[in-house]
Amino acid sequence: MAHFELSELRDDFNRHLRTFLAHNSSHLQSISPALEPVGVALSEFILDSGKRLRPIFAYAGFVATGKTPDAPAMQAMASLELLQACALIHDDLMDRSETRRGKPAIHKRFESLHQERDFAGSATLFGDAAAILLGDLALVWADHMFHSAQCPVEQTLDAQRIHDEMRIELMAGQFLDVYEQGQRDHNTDRSLNIARYKSGKYTIERPLHFGAALAGESDELKKALSEFGLPLGEAFQLRDDLLGVFGDPSMTGKPAGDDLREGKRTVLISMTHEALSESERAHFFSLFGKTDLDSGEVDTLRAIISSSGADQRVEELISHLTSQCLSALDAEVFDARSREILTSLSAIATKRSA
Amino acid sequence: MAHFELSELRDDFNRHLRTFLAHNSSHLQSISPALEPVGVALSEFILDSGKRLRPIFAYAGFVATGKTPDAPAMQAMASLELLQACALIHDDLMDRSETRRGKPAIHKRFESLHQERDFAGSATLFGDAAAILLGDLALVWADHMFHSAQCPVEQTLDAQRIHDEMRIELMAGQFLDVYEQGQRDHNTDRSLNIARYKSGKYTIERPLHFGAALAGESDELKKALSEFGLPLGEAFQLRDDLLGVFGDPSMTGKPAGDDLREGKRTVLISMTHEALSESERAHFFSLFGKTDLDSGEVDTLRAIISSSGADQRVEELISHLTSQCLSALDAEVFDARSREILTSLSAIATKRSA
Repeated sequence: MAHFELSELRDDFNRHLRTFLAHNSSHLQSISPALEPVGVALSEFILDSGKRLRPIFAYAGFVATGKTPDAPAMQAMASLELLQACALIHDDLMDRSETRRGKPAIHKRFESLHQERDFAGSATLFGDAAAILLGDLALVWADHMFHSAQCPVEQTLDAQRIHDEMRIELMAGQFLDVYEQGQRDHNTDRSLNIARYKSGKYTIERPLHFGAALAGESDELKKALSEFGLPLGEAFQLRDDLLGVFGDPSMTGKPAGDDLREGKRTVLISMTHEALSESERAHFFSLFGKTDLDSGEVDTLRAIISSSGADQRVEELISHLTSQCLSALDAEVFDARSREILTSLSAIATKRSA
Repeated sequence: MAHFELSELRDDFNRHLRTFLAHNSSHLQSISPALEPVGVALSEFILDSGKRLRPIFAYAGFVATGKTPDAPAMQAMASLELLQACALIHDDLMDRSETRRGKPAIHKRFESLHQERDFAGSATLFGDAAAILLGDLALVWADHMFHSAQCPVEQTLDAQRIHDEMRIELMAGQFLDVYEQGQRDHNTDRSLNIARYKSGKYTIERPLHFGAALAGESDELKKALSEFGLPLGEAFQLRDDLLGVFGDPSMTGKPAGDDLREGKRTVLISMTHEALSESERAHFFSLFGKTDLDSGEVDTLRAIISSSGADQRVEELISHLTSQCLSALDAEVFDARSREILTSLSAIATKRSA
C-alpha cells in the first residue's frame, strides 16, 4: 500500500470483510441451519456494494501518523463497515424504505422469504424482526471483527474508547434525526447539529481518530484531524441531503426524490422553509412527506426548492465547509503524503454524484 | 461481599448501574437537550426493576475461582444488565408486547411521548424507531460500561472474547425464536435448541464464563461451569415458558397468558401439540395465537395444556435438568463456597414464581 490507490484499498478491505463474513456465517450455521439466510443476507448486503468510506477515513487517520497499517490494523478498520451495515439496516426499517443500493432493504428481503417459504404469521412482522436482529448482529460482528484482529493491546484499548464514543454519537445522531421528523417547526441550527453527529463525527472525525489510535496517535494529530474532519463530515451530510432530493436513482440506489416522499427534515428543507413566502410554504408542505408522490409532484417540489435558492445556499455552505477543512491541512502535523490523501478524500466525500 | 447475600449483591450492581446511567445520560444531554427522554427512559427501564440475573451469574463465575471481585470487576459484570436491556427492548418491539415489568414497553412509552407533545407524523413509527435506537444504545452502553471499568488488560481481553461470543449467540437465539414462530410444524428438539441459545448460554453459561474470565479463569473451571450452567439455563427457559402461560401477572409483569396470545412456540406448546388428538389440536390451535383472547379463552387453553400432561412433562424436564446441573457441582474444581452459591442460584433460576 505504498501509493494511495483507492480501488486497491477497497479491495484490501473487501478481502478482510469477505474472510470474516465467510467464517462467521459458517459459525451461525453450526448453531442451526435455519441461520443460513442471516449469514447470506448480511454478506451480500456488505459485499455487493458500499464505498467503504469509514474504513478509508480510518486508513487516512492511520497514515497521517506516518505509519503504514499491517493486516491486523486493516481488519480492525474494515470492521467499521459492519457498524455501518447496522446503521443502514435499522435506518431503512425506521424509515420504512423499501430499497437500499438498488436492492430490497433487509426487512423487505425477509418479508419476501416469509412469503416464498409460506411461513405462518405476519410476513411484515417477520421482516421487521429480522431487520432488528440482523442490525444487532452486524453491530456485534463489528466489535468481534475489531477485537479478533488482535492489534497491539495499548492501541486496541485506545481505539476502543474512540469506537465506543463513536457508536454513542451515532445512536444519539440517529435519535435526533428521528426526533426532528416529529417537530412542527423547522430550524437550520438543529438540522446542522444532527448533521454534525450523524455524519461529521460518525462518518469522518471518529474514523480518522480510530485509525490514528490504532497507529498510536499523538493528541496534537487528533486535534488537527478534528479540524479537518468535522467540517468535511458536515459537508458530506449536506451533499447527501442534496442527492436525496436531486440525485439520480441509478447513482443513489434509491428512487428519485425518496427523501421528499419520506418528508426528511434536512438543512436543505429548513432553508427552503425559511426562503418561501407563506403561500408557497403551504403549497410545498402540502406535498412534502406525501408517501405516494408521483414523478410530476417530485419535479414540482424540486422546482420550488431550486427557485427558493435553498439548494444554492446549501452548495455555498458545502464550499465554505470544504475550504475550511482544506485550510486545516496547513497544520504542521500533516506531511505531504497525508495532505494529498486527505485532499483527495475531501473531494470524494463532497462530490456531486453518489 | 464476604457472604453471599443476594440483596447486597443486587444493591452493589445497582449502585454501579446508577452511576453509569447518570453520567452517560448527562453526556447525551450535552449533545442535545432533545436526548433527555432517552437517558430517562433507559435509566428507569434498568433501575426500576430486574433481577440482575446475568450479573449475579457472572459474580458466581468470578468467586468460583476462589477470588473476590473488586469494584472494576463489579462494574464490568453489572454491564450485562445493559445488554439485557437491549434484548428486552428489541424483543418487546418484535413481539409487539405493550408492557414490560408492568409498565409500558419502550416503543409504547415513546409512542405516548409523541402523542403528549403533539409531534408531527406517525406516533407508532416514532415509538418503533425510538425502541430500535434505545436498544442499540443500550448495547453500546453495555460495552462502554464494561470497557470503562478498566479491569486488568489480560482479563479484559479474555472476557471480551466471551462477551462477543455471548452476544452472537444471543442474536442467533433470538433469530431462531422468531424463525420458529413462522414454522407450520412443531418440533420439541428445535425448541430445545432455541432454549439452549436464548437462555442456556446467554443467561447462564456465558455470564459464568465472563465472570471467571475477569478473575483469570482456568480452562478446567470453564468446562465445569458449562456442565453446571447449560442444563440450568435450559431449565430456566422452560420455567419462563411455563410462567408465560400459567404465571401470575402481578409476578410476571405481563398480562395473564400473554405467550398464548402471542402464539409463542415453546417446548411446552410443542409437547402439547404432540400429546393432543387431531380434533383436540384443531380446537387448541384455533385459539392459540389469537391476539384478542379473553380470559375465558386463556383458561380454556391452559386447561387443554394441563389435561394433555405437557406442563407435567415440562416440570419433569426441569427437575431432570436441575439435578443434572447440581451433579455437575461435584466436580473437584468447586470449593464448598462455590457449591453453596451455585446451588442457591439454581433454585432461584428455576423456582415456580417469576
